[in-house]
Amino acid sequence: MDVMKAIQSRHSIRAYDTRGVEEEKLVRILESARLSPSAGNRQERRFVITKDAKTRKMLSEAASNQSFVAEAPVVIAACSVESEYVMSCGQLAYPIDTAIAVDHMTLKAVEEGLGTCWIGAFDEKEVKEILAIPEDVRVVALLTVGYPSEIPDARPRKSLSEIVMWERWSL
Amino acid sequence: MDVMKAIQSRHSIRAYDTRGVEEEKLVRILESARLSPSAGNRQERRFVITKDAKTRKMLSEAASNQSFVAEAPVVIAACSVESEYVMSCGQLAYPIDTAIAVDHMTLKAVEEGLGTCWIGAFDEKEVKEILAIPEDVRVVALLTVGYPSEIPDARPRKSLSEIVMWERWSL
Repeated sequence: MDVMKAIQSRHSIRAYDTRGVEEEKLVRILESARLSPSAGNRQERRFVITKDAKTRKMLSEAASNQSFVAEAPVVIAACSVESEYVMSCGQLAYPIDTAIAVDHMTLKAVEEGLGTCWIGAFDEKEVKEILAIPEDVRVVALLTVGYPSEIPDARPRKSLSEIVMWERWSL
Repeated sequence: MDVMKAIQSRHSIRAYDTRGVEEEKLVRILESARLSPSAGNRQERRFVITKDAKTRKMLSEAASNQSFVAEAPVVIAACSVESEYVMSCGQLAYPIDTAIAVDHMTLKAVEEGLGTCWIGAFDEKEVKEILAIPEDVRVVALLTVGYPSEIPDARPRKSLSEIVMWERWSL
């Protein structure tokens, strides 16, 4: 699938059918995260993959009781084993590096006919307890993966002229 | 181009030929950022596009004197007009949301036959002065865009078994 088609077809999927995700598809999605860039190629991202129904139920409770988190056949916790490195622009590297990996996975999942939802609403401490994630590791995102049972309408976006400026700030 | 092919073909390009970037290609790359998701669809990202050679020279000086920043025909400053919203997981939304938009652009650029380099080494204050970016706006990344004159070797990556765990943390 073309990159632009994947970008246009990606939606936050919050309704999944009961089919599981084929192992080879999941591996290709994880491969897309593996290949993604990180600041200085530090590769501080780690991924905990949950298929177990009981654990997914617990994760959904830790994620503001969003029930689709339990219904999705796969939940990926995107983590960073390092959380202090600041780039000279002033930004912490790890949220950005982890976001790059997760974004790659969202687009690769579309290519595989799968849907995802990027979740930022969760209790990090609870998620770490559920998945036995060490104290010093940060959980940046949860990502549900599965076959969509419902494709939502595209959400409205600002126009290019509202977000793009030429040569200098002009908003 | 398939998503996976774009992911595999993306490298940080630090050598550009002198050809400019066609307007329609640049617009499609910006369109990929426009369509990218953000927390709560807040769309707080803004993009300042520089083609002017003198400005690119100044940006390269603000970017640790990385000369390829001046050589690339286009430099995109990826900004956020909001920088305080914290998701319930504890992460600031804006670095993640901006990273999502920039990551989309890196992959769409590959599909267009172009190369990019994601730059985190820059003096934010200087970049803001050069581009007249308001005080309260954050610059999260610079992205060079152009035709590669040199494709670097792929950088080594950890194996899947070093970064992926199943059901619970196990490293």
